[in-house]
Amino acid sequence: MQPTIDLNSDLGESFGAWHVGDDEAMFRVVTSANVACGFHAGDAVTMARSAAAAAREGVVLGAHPGYRDLVGFGRRALETSPDEIAAELLVQLGSLDGVARASGIRVRYVKAHGALYHRLATDAAAARAFAEAVAVYDPTLPVLGPPSSEIELAADAAGLRFAREAFVDRGYLADGSLVPRGQPTSIVDDPAAAADRALELAETGSITADDGSRVELRPDSLCLHGDTPGAAVMAAAVRAALERAGVEIRAFA
Amino acid sequence: MQPTIDLNSDLGESFGAWHVGDDEAMFRVVTSANVACGFHAGDAVTMARSAAAAAREGVVLGAHPGYRDLVGFGRRALETSPDEIAAELLVQLGSLDGVARASGIRVRYVKAHGALYHRLATDAAAARAFAEAVAVYDPTLPVLGPPSSEIELAADAAGLRFAREAFVDRGYLADGSLVPRGQPTSIVDDPAAAADRALELAETGSITADDGSRVELRPDSLCLHGDTPGAAVMAAAVRAALERAGVEIRAFA
Amino acid sequence: MQPTIDLNSDLGESFGAWHVGDDEAMFRVVTSANVACGFHAGDAVTMARSAAAAAREGVVLGAHPGYRDLVGFGRRALETSPDEIAAELLVQLGSLDGVARASGIRVRYVKAHGALYHRLATDAAAARAFAEAVAVYDPTLPVLGPPSSEIELAADAAGLRFAREAFVDRGYLADGSLVPRGQPTSIVDDPAAAADRALELAETGSITADDGSRVELRPDSLCLHGDTPGAAVMAAAVRAALERAGVEIRAFA
Amino acid sequence: MQPTIDLNSDLGESFGAWHVGDDEAMFRVVTSANVACGFHAGDAVTMARSAAAAAREGVVLGAHPGYRDLVGFGRRALETSPDEIAAELLVQLGSLDGVARASGIRVRYVKAHGALYHRLATDAAAARAFAEAVAVYDPTLPVLGPPSSEIELAADAAGLRFAREAFVDRGYLADGSLVPRGQPTSIVDDPAAAADRALELAETGSITADDGSRVELRPDSLCLHGDTPGAAVMAAAVRAALERAGVEIRAFA
Repeated sequence: MQPTIDLNSDLGESFGAWHVGDDEAMFRVVTSANVACGFHAGDAVTMARSAAAAAREGVVLGAHPGYRDLVGFGRRALETSPDEIAAELLVQLGSLDGVARASGIRVRYVKAHGALYHRLATDAAAARAFAEAVAVYDPTLPVLGPPSSEIELAADAAGLRFAREAFVDRGYLADGSLVPRGQPTSIVDDPAAAADRALELAETGSITADDGSRVELRPDSLCLHGDTPGAAVMAAAVRAALERAGVEIRAFA
Repeated sequence: MQPTIDLNSDLGESFGAWHVGDDEAMFRVVTSANVACGFHAGDAVTMARSAAAAAREGVVLGAHPGYRDLVGFGRRALETSPDEIAAELLVQLGSLDGVARASGIRVRYVKAHGALYHRLATDAAAARAFAEAVAVYDPTLPVLGPPSSEIELAADAAGLRFAREAFVDRGYLADGSLVPRGQPTSIVDDPAAAADRALELAETGSITADDGSRVELRPDSLCLHGDTPGAAVMAAAVRAALERAGVEIRAFA
Repeated sequence: MQPTIDLNSDLGESFGAWHVGDDEAMFRVVTSANVACGFHAGDAVTMARSAAAAAREGVVLGAHPGYRDLVGFGRRALETSPDEIAAELLVQLGSLDGVARASGIRVRYVKAHGALYHRLATDAAAARAFAEAVAVYDPTLPVLGPPSSEIELAADAAGLRFAREAFVDRGYLADGSLVPRGQPTSIVDDPAAAADRALELAETGSITADDGSRVELRPDSLCLHGDTPGAAVMAAAVRAALERAGVEIRAFA
Repeated sequence: MQPTIDLNSDLGESFGAWHVGDDEAMFRVVTSANVACGFHAGDAVTMARSAAAAAREGVVLGAHPGYRDLVGFGRRALETSPDEIAAELLVQLGSLDGVARASGIRVRYVKAHGALYHRLATDAAAARAFAEAVAVYDPTLPVLGPPSSEIELAADAAGLRFAREAFVDRGYLADGSLVPRGQPTSIVDDPAAAADRALELAETGSITADDGSRVELRPDSLCLHGDTPGAAVMAAAVRAALERAGVEIRAFA
């Protein structure tokens, strides 16, 4: 049976006059776009343009909500309550879903951003608030996130489909967590190596960890970074390798 | 035949720790609530609370989008393009509509705020961008605004229902425009006088202008201010006078 | 020898159209005003007005920097680096010191706000970054903060004068920390009781703790809250009691 | 006598994770850096880094205040009152001057940004508010701006030195105003042509206008754009041409 995988990337991360990432190239490579919703990046016009690009390229649109922290790009831990998490999710999800209508599409899944993403992996109360808010918005929307996390449990409990993602350019520890940044095996920056890892993940559902053991991740989607130099080159290499190997690249949502 | 009128007010204008207006009282008086959508006022939690209050009190929820100008409360003219007007409308409308779902309701009309409200009255290109964006979101949503304005024409052209509002606490000139602030007859601050004007508007569709002539406004809704001292008292007086006179108070949307 | 004490309060916490606190009354009671610098509250015009009020009432102006978090009013923990803490302190301090010149005065001390205040009490690296940035700006500026804290040590190490504050309306534990909010003895809301505690603190330098023991705080300043209902009444009661008892009320800076 | 000219550029226009312009190259070419102060661009850390770069490269630091409009990059007209203009100038000027101390330097001149720059050229009340606020801050700070403008008159009236700037990459009309964007002669994008114009301006104080006539501008400074592709190349070409011709390149302040 032919293996199938989704390719996702964080896109639409510009803000006003500030542009980041080669979105034009990335929208042609991915099948799912996690689009910033204004809280950590993405003003209204950028959101409209990102939705238009998704519509034009046939890419599935996902909401990519984060903390309300423009200057920190949503990457800094911020002490928000479950009520704030829920209300801010609904506001961000609704705003992208609103502006997407101008391009004739709608939001079809949700993936948290940055420090919120990391928090939802381990904070059960935050994960529950997030998942229940997604379910309030639309119980058919899947949540995309890390395998074996609190957000996976919370999505299940809220009756939502959960899609698992893996990173092609990050090293994994034996327990399935990422090698912390700063360690030598943390980042994979060679496109060919990333492509090999993508293939390994797509075909086997697992990856060779830092210590040589195998980690079972069973990803539905592979995350490709879009905001680093060479990101588009690596993304294209990953996609080409998957296609050559006969992996079907298809949106998970 | 019994006259019918809607009562609307700008509510949900708090932001974070800053509270403004006696929303608790006002939500019990009005039939339609124009709720701020985060750009000039209204953080996510405030928006959620406003939607919850609307649901609890049976008040129809309206989106009240404004310029992206927290420090100016959306009251300062800002040079935005039609593309910005459209994208920012969709983002604001979607965000309130998103968070309203947590209370089991949805946005049912749109009324612009502050400097944007005034601009849409006279700027045809801006009004067109705004109305077309509302139609993209949901062509069954009415727009509430000033009679005989560019936004009325634009709403008509976009196939939207337009609801006309009049102010019970503002003086009118013979041409139907408001007496400019600062002039002695600009503001009506006596609750009884405001109640009389509300009755005149509801029963005749017209109001006595500054010069004694009558101005035909044919309002569907009367706007009650909610953020001034004594606002709740005036609003209650207006509602009581209308009820005593047998005017049916009913949401226009 | 006549005891001497300073009275400080967090003022200038409005933002744009949103007003909070009875600053007019409070500026007539305190000797030192901690004025918000734009990051958690206080737009430019509010800052200018607060400096003008300080100049008019002969109150010493202090900078009250906080986290960049308007919607959270600087009350939420935010993961900032020492570089961010230093740069944001200098920006906030400079901005208030700049606008104060329009009233012929300058900033004469610094006190951190909210979550940053709490962090500086226990986080040595953050406290060092903060104190060193104050010293870079002007090594003659004192820092106002909690006794026996990391910020006291850091101010000492940076060669800055440190002024200790105590709260007249908060209960203390035996170790000198505040009774956590939510516990029955956490808040003192009776003006007479607060006045008694102020007198005890001013005359003895210590306060009766929760368990009946005495805590040595040796405060240079007593903090009066300005943003609660009845704040101005309590502040006036405290000041009157101190004056009646012959305590000299004088700015610490 | 050897002609002398200053070279200035708008720098420090990044914000948080968003980077714009090749500041590293530009700081090595210019003698004066107009650094954004947080309202339209430039968070605290970016401001600190820009001041550090100015100190390192021996470039004179100027404050570049703009409208409070991050999403519009300060380029959109915004209806601010003279009080707002003055208070916002003082806050921005103070904030950059504050953070610059960490690099052992201070702000030495002021140049308005974007829509505020354009407004100050023609709006006498706004220009007066701006100039008087600069004088309040420090009456020895020069203002850099367009020749024969309201801001020149206002700076004179406030007792400030006014420095005139000309653009090497913009066409001029016979009356000294810029050829409106969109017209064919509006932009000079050839580095050699820009260098020729810079030399003409530095040596003669005048420039050949669109219609062939000569316009007397008598600039103290030439503005080099730093945020366009090829900006650093053009800036280097301009500087090299001036040096080859024996023009002394020296900060005006």
